[in-house]
Amino acid sequence: MKISIYISPKEGVLDPQGQAALGALKSLGFDEVTAVHIGRYITLEVEGDDAAKAEERVTEMCDRLLANPIIEDYRVNVE
Amino acid sequence: MKISIYISPKEGVLDPQGQAALGALKSLGFDEVTAVHIGRYITLEVEGDDAAKAEERVTEMCDRLLANPIIEDYRVNVE
Repeated sequence: MKISIYISPKEGVLDPQGQAALGALKSLGFDEVTAVHIGRYITLEVEGDDAAKAEERVTEMCDRLLANPIIEDYRVNVE
Repeated sequence: MKISIYISPKEGVLDPQGQAALGALKSLGFDEVTAVHIGRYITLEVEGDDAAKAEERVTEMCDRLLANPIIEDYRVNVE
């Protein structure tokens, strides 16, 4: 099973990577960009065919290792 | 307009972050995971209402700054 995880900085949390990218885009002439947020896109290959169980396990993986729930939001998508 | 960009390492390119995460997941008992790939999830806020034009501009931003097309694949999604 392929599972995608989308992690982004929580609203209001400092995002220095995003700020740097915004500045760089503006200096390249992309003036229409008003905000940039940089997070992580993780894909997993997981054995088994129970999608609900897989989603539950991957949520646990996010909470314990892959994301930092204090400063990041994440979304899990089983494909 | 909100635009999402999903960047992942190309097939066959070394992904040391993914390898490290895979090892850590296995040591935590998540033995069902067989592969981990770590990329970036970028969201942009862009002024304007022409979605096709925005997608074209964001593709240019990816090629010039946000992604490394030599070792990374990316996908742009206008919301």
